[in-house]
Amino acid sequence: MSYQGEQHPGVAPAASQTQGFRLNHTMLRVKDPERALAFYSKVFGMRVLRRLDFEEMQFSLYFLANVEESDHVPEETQARTAWTFSQKGLLELTHNWGTENEQDFAYHDGNAEPQGFGHICFSVPDLEAAQAWFDEHDVTFVKRADQGKMKDVVFVKDADGYWIEVIQADRMAGMGD
Amino acid sequence: MSYQGEQHPGVAPAASQTQGFRLNHTMLRVKDPERALAFYSKVFGMRVLRRLDFEEMQFSLYFLANVEESDHVPEETQARTAWTFSQKGLLELTHNWGTENEQDFAYHDGNAEPQGFGHICFSVPDLEAAQAWFDEHDVTFVKRADQGKMKDVVFVKDADGYWIEVIQADRMAGMGD
Repeated sequence: MSYQGEQHPGVAPAASQTQGFRLNHTMLRVKDPERALAFYSKVFGMRVLRRLDFEEMQFSLYFLANVEESDHVPEETQARTAWTFSQKGLLELTHNWGTENEQDFAYHDGNAEPQGFGHICFSVPDLEAAQAWFDEHDVTFVKRADQGKMKDVVFVKDADGYWIEVIQADRMAGMGD
Repeated sequence: MSYQGEQHPGVAPAASQTQGFRLNHTMLRVKDPERALAFYSKVFGMRVLRRLDFEEMQFSLYFLANVEESDHVPEETQARTAWTFSQKGLLELTHNWGTENEQDFAYHDGNAEPQGFGHICFSVPDLEAAQAWFDEHDVTFVKRADQGKMKDVVFVKDADGYWIEVIQADRMAGMGD
């Protein structure tokens, strides 16, 4: 029997009808796909699994993932598309055509008012190495690992200003104690 | 060698410094954790891997996942915490204490202006069964599979009004053609 989870007010048992449900992706709108793809591919090592263009509605979608050796991504397009939508933890970037040419256009990060969405988070093997890597690419820090109340937690901004948390799993074991 | 991804303007090769990077979670603020946990556990079958309370800063974090048989979640708390932060595709819900008692308080969904974050997306084994399951729980639909221009794509709202896309992977194979 799989792990049933912590019990807190509101939590109901997982029903058999939800078997196979997976959190496939999170969608963020980006102003300039070239700039956003440069950031996520170079700095975070993500690959584009699939771009989908919607001519009639004037937008494109980019589905990104950190591909691991064990992933066996299908090369053939339709098989790769179906594979993409069966995975966990992808990032979808939406580009509404033309926004890259509007000088004052910017998306809302969700941390300024009105608040809602907060951030995405990457787990990395070595937090200090990651910080040095971000510095090498002139990434904007919200906070470094040794700053603020939450030690060992890094926040940077992506190319559109969305916040990205960066953590090292084995250093989070005592978090919240 | 692992899949190198589609080439589009901006895309750079994945550097060795990014090896082991994983998209661990997406964070959404929720007004009432009891209501949000009821929704995500009952309707989407998610389990609470870990709640972390921050007394000084007056907030709690809930890390949720769809646990699969093959996951082998550690029971012991510190091991489970480290395990949680090494996974892909988790949902983090942030509760700033007291918001649940403010009558007019609501978070911003990112789809009304100002736009930014769009949605999270669940992949499910059977889209019609999922729709029936949502109806059974009086979930609010943004669109059903047979509505709008994007067939086979469902959008519902969570307890805070954030949009959730729901798809069936094998029906997405021809998407964008």
